[in-house]
Amino acid sequence: MNDLDIARAITPQPIDDIAEKIGIPASALVRYGEDKAKVTLDWIEGANGRENGRLILVTAITPTPAGEGKTTTTVGLGDGLSRIGKRTAICLREPSLGPCFGMKGGAAGGGYAQVIPMEDINLHFTGDFHAIAAANNLLAALIDNAVYWRKDLGLDNRRISWRRSVDMNDRSLRQLVTSLGGVPNGAPREGGFDITAASEIMAILCLASDLNDLQRRLGNIIIGQDMEQRRFVHAREINAQGAMTALLKDALKPNLVQTLEGTPAFVHGGPFANIAHGCNSLIATKLALKCADFVVTEAGFGADLGPKNSSISNVVRAGLNPPRWCWSQPCGL
Amino acid sequence: MNDLDIARAITPQPIDDIAEKIGIPASALVRYGEDKAKVTLDWIEGANGRENGRLILVTAITPTPAGEGKTTTTVGLGDGLSRIGKRTAICLREPSLGPCFGMKGGAAGGGYAQVIPMEDINLHFTGDFHAIAAANNLLAALIDNAVYWRKDLGLDNRRISWRRSVDMNDRSLRQLVTSLGGVPNGAPREGGFDITAASEIMAILCLASDLNDLQRRLGNIIIGQDMEQRRFVHAREINAQGAMTALLKDALKPNLVQTLEGTPAFVHGGPFANIAHGCNSLIATKLALKCADFVVTEAGFGADLGPKNSSISNVVRAGLNPPRWCWSQPCGL
Amino acid sequence: MNDLDIARAITPQPIDDIAEKIGIPASALVRYGEDKAKVTLDWIEGANGRENGRLILVTAITPTPAGEGKTTTTVGLGDGLSRIGKRTAICLREPSLGPCFGMKGGAAGGGYAQVIPMEDINLHFTGDFHAIAAANNLLAALIDNAVYWRKDLGLDNRRISWRRSVDMNDRSLRQLVTSLGGVPNGAPREGGFDITAASEIMAILCLASDLNDLQRRLGNIIIGQDMEQRRFVHAREINAQGAMTALLKDALKPNLVQTLEGTPAFVHGGPFANIAHGCNSLIATKLALKCADFVVTEAGFGADLGPKNSSISNVVRAGLNPPRWCWSQPCGL
Amino acid sequence: MNDLDIARAITPQPIDDIAEKIGIPASALVRYGEDKAKVTLDWIEGANGRENGRLILVTAITPTPAGEGKTTTTVGLGDGLSRIGKRTAICLREPSLGPCFGMKGGAAGGGYAQVIPMEDINLHFTGDFHAIAAANNLLAALIDNAVYWRKDLGLDNRRISWRRSVDMNDRSLRQLVTSLGGVPNGAPREGGFDITAASEIMAILCLASDLNDLQRRLGNIIIGQDMEQRRFVHAREINAQGAMTALLKDALKPNLVQTLEGTPAFVHGGPFANIAHGCNSLIATKLALKCADFVVTEAGFGADLGPKNSSISNVVRAGLNPPRWCWSQPCGL
Repeated sequence: MNDLDIARAITPQPIDDIAEKIGIPASALVRYGEDKAKVTLDWIEGANGRENGRLILVTAITPTPAGEGKTTTTVGLGDGLSRIGKRTAICLREPSLGPCFGMKGGAAGGGYAQVIPMEDINLHFTGDFHAIAAANNLLAALIDNAVYWRKDLGLDNRRISWRRSVDMNDRSLRQLVTSLGGVPNGAPREGGFDITAASEIMAILCLASDLNDLQRRLGNIIIGQDMEQRRFVHAREINAQGAMTALLKDALKPNLVQTLEGTPAFVHGGPFANIAHGCNSLIATKLALKCADFVVTEAGFGADLGPKNSSISNVVRAGLNPPRWCWSQPCGL
Repeated sequence: MNDLDIARAITPQPIDDIAEKIGIPASALVRYGEDKAKVTLDWIEGANGRENGRLILVTAITPTPAGEGKTTTTVGLGDGLSRIGKRTAICLREPSLGPCFGMKGGAAGGGYAQVIPMEDINLHFTGDFHAIAAANNLLAALIDNAVYWRKDLGLDNRRISWRRSVDMNDRSLRQLVTSLGGVPNGAPREGGFDITAASEIMAILCLASDLNDLQRRLGNIIIGQDMEQRRFVHAREINAQGAMTALLKDALKPNLVQTLEGTPAFVHGGPFANIAHGCNSLIATKLALKCADFVVTEAGFGADLGPKNSSISNVVRAGLNPPRWCWSQPCGL
Repeated sequence: MNDLDIARAITPQPIDDIAEKIGIPASALVRYGEDKAKVTLDWIEGANGRENGRLILVTAITPTPAGEGKTTTTVGLGDGLSRIGKRTAICLREPSLGPCFGMKGGAAGGGYAQVIPMEDINLHFTGDFHAIAAANNLLAALIDNAVYWRKDLGLDNRRISWRRSVDMNDRSLRQLVTSLGGVPNGAPREGGFDITAASEIMAILCLASDLNDLQRRLGNIIIGQDMEQRRFVHAREINAQGAMTALLKDALKPNLVQTLEGTPAFVHGGPFANIAHGCNSLIATKLALKCADFVVTEAGFGADLGPKNSSISNVVRAGLNPPRWCWSQPCGL
Repeated sequence: MNDLDIARAITPQPIDDIAEKIGIPASALVRYGEDKAKVTLDWIEGANGRENGRLILVTAITPTPAGEGKTTTTVGLGDGLSRIGKRTAICLREPSLGPCFGMKGGAAGGGYAQVIPMEDINLHFTGDFHAIAAANNLLAALIDNAVYWRKDLGLDNRRISWRRSVDMNDRSLRQLVTSLGGVPNGAPREGGFDITAASEIMAILCLASDLNDLQRRLGNIIIGQDMEQRRFVHAREINAQGAMTALLKDALKPNLVQTLEGTPAFVHGGPFANIAHGCNSLIATKLALKCADFVVTEAGFGADLGPKNSSISNVVRAGLNPPRWCWSQPCGL
């Protein structure tokens, strides 16, 4: 049986039941079908005062091309803790569509250590990646529009550093010249697209603690330099942060699904580790710590460089209590 | 009170109750929160044998820049029919994000003739536009990939006609040169993005009767011409239709919401009338006709040119029974 | 024998002897080898007061792809007039390198009706085309430089209308994007190259009466529009006309060569008829009229549209006395 | 008095007289006006058997931005040797138009150590640079044409390494995308222009010993790589070398002018030292050695790195007899 066969042989538990296992009431859920839900930001805020559970971090040395099993270790460890009666949740990154259609395949675990509904998670899931790309590209459009209408920014069209993004493996979009076709299409400019998982918006969303914090961070984005003094120009100077936040207000809500064995799984945020902290959203991990006694999560790679030099240190720096380490290779819990 | 104030003053009815009004059981719904749902394709197929209700088509003459009220007429007429006790549904196009952030504003009616939840509908809604853009851009990536790896198609890189799409008003992306930066990024090519509402995938989705028909139509897309004989090359020749269909399998399910007065409203598909048939998906209209005695829908503009020359004729050509005409300006029901 | 064999079988007369036939002293010549010379502008100015000879214009109807013999008619007629003892000169356009390496071949007549040295004339000749391209491209570089250093012109980078030129048939250069590679290379811009014979500088050189007039006309070139009011911006506003005139000071001097039968032939200036007046330089024709009793020249095509609508009317408008018409097809002198 | 005033105050000697000083008869000259001439290749071949004079090489350490006087040292040394009765010639590079219109100014010496006619030399001179650019760009056009007509080369359009050239300081042309505008204009390609002095053709012309050698070297130019095996493709594979040689047949002939004091000066070839050997043409230096007892020339910069590592070693490698060194700073003859 392949991963998909295994996943399809299981009847998922209703997402309300999964949420109930860690004390999240049905009223705190925004359901996407029967087996996926987002948790409302209001309920999350209300849970802020609670004590934290313990965080277990699964990491890995510099990986082989085949991967070395951080996700399956995380899922398995979570299911094991559940089986011996611990109130447990796991936290994972949500996968990008790009590698999913590329050679790498999906990213929701494998074998009997999967999160489900695997197909949904690997495709559009709850639309977070699309919302991030939309916010990213709205900013790009607003920038070019500001140049087009020559708003009073002094923004140097040759020094715009903001790129577009799309959730696709598409080498053709890495480097391009836009605004061709004459004056109605703007001023020609060299630009490009990054895959959404490697975008700054993805990193920002995963670090934001609430909508206000998200909006503040979005406003602080550097979009380029001005003509006279090469001063950095920020997204807030073209007043982009409000509309961007509107596009991201649902994406900020953590997604709740389950493992094949019914352990609650927060699958939320998916920044690549090469440009960002490489772990799931802090809002999801923090929520999990308020709801479960044990939270298993995974982070990045390169832990053989020492935790300080790898992406796992971001988990600590972000203000979470010190995790217990779990190395997936070998797994020395 | 503006439109948003009016919309927010109403407590929406649970979407299960709305569905029940026209005989759609809760088991046929995939809920997106409390007030939005998609209807499963299985249930739609099961309803195929039923008799059709009557179709009322609201159209308009060539519009003024201010618009002339097709949507508000459709909503109002639907609510009126409901009020006098008729089992009624309305069918509308879902709005594009692009104009929503542009000057034109959203497209979910106005005043007391709105569909709700207006903000959701105007933003990501159930993700249909994003799924369409993803399928569109996956095809583009597969085409460039086929050229890159010189698959045995003879496809002429200068005669690729397939463009990318994004749900954004972005003049900078209309015309561009892609694949710059040397060999690793492919062969330079002139291309561009269309707004998603004006993409061929949008048109195809709105005409498809089921997943098989959708996949067949996707495979028939012309992507360019070959080198030797300028023969048309199709999406099926690079085997793109399967993955594209996977990306569109949820988008094909009609979305159900409600008017402010609780009339069931199918808001599904949003092709622009300048390049396509300019009305909502046929699968939604056909479903509505199976569920309601009166279905009010709207179509395009330019009916002063005669129905045959305007987008409304597409409704007829698509195999629907002849609608009764309703002109929104003046509204001569 | 082909054209080249015929040309090589003849020993050209020294260019001083050719000049002497029409009263131009050796001191008025700048020799390029033994068989080509330019006439100094000082001597030309000194001859201004003389009476004009008679101008005979050879023209043609809309041509077939094979051409229909304007040049050979002109050469033959000139040689015939010489043979019967008339003091005669002919005036021809100088050929472009582009078509010479293309399918069309050279443009110095054919058979026994050639001007020589044919190979030199068909290649670089006295460098006029290169000088024109250099002046053209210097202006382009000065424009981009003015934008780069943001000189106080308000010139809109998207509305620069000045194109570059090269004396080559090169389809790749018709439309391009320049200034790629980041800030040090300027602001990206859509542009292109015209073949030198179709450049505005070529047209200007062929109409200029002396160096002052040339410089004035160069200064009047429209290079684009400004940002605020779409006002036309001229070459003189970036002070380009002086350096351009320096580059063209030799090119303005008419070239003197000979026919195979030793008739003096001014071969000077070569504007294409599709964008310009399509005949050789006025300075050459006017000089010829001062030196010879009969001057045979040719002009453009499309005379079947009536002289007023074709390029030959430019010869008249330019202030020359009314020519006698000579139709090359059939040749009805 | 500035350089130009000094130059204009002198009446140049007829170029025939200058040539006679070093035994070149008038019949071996192709005159360009009164004061410039090229020496025929036939006469050069005939002089091959003669004994060589002595070569004195002026070089310099890594230069300051102001330059450090190689050219003025060379001119002054040559004039000094003439003054004491030695049969002397000097050899210099011919200047590029580009820096001439830039900040650097011309390159024909200065003060009382100039070569004349300075203005002509600094502008088009005898057309060598234009001919080199034309041959360069003809090859580019032939390459794109071969791709356009899909000649049987397997040439990979993304791996064409041949660039265009123009004798102009123009940052906008350094990096561009060509062949835009659809199929009639070819396949889009990333390319660029080098200044003519930095082109491979310039280097080749300066190393070629005669027309046959020139044509052989032109044929050996690598234009790109093929699709299947990344095999290098050469100019001779598209049969470009014949037409290129035709365009260069006059440019290969050394130019003869004079210093202000009437010393014969060969000013021929002008490769930049950053990409090539950085000294004038070998054909000119070799000719000078056959005609004069003392030949003073200059080479490149960076001699403080040791002659082996700087451009002066090229003079030796090219088969010339070992020169006596002359350092211009300080000048320690």
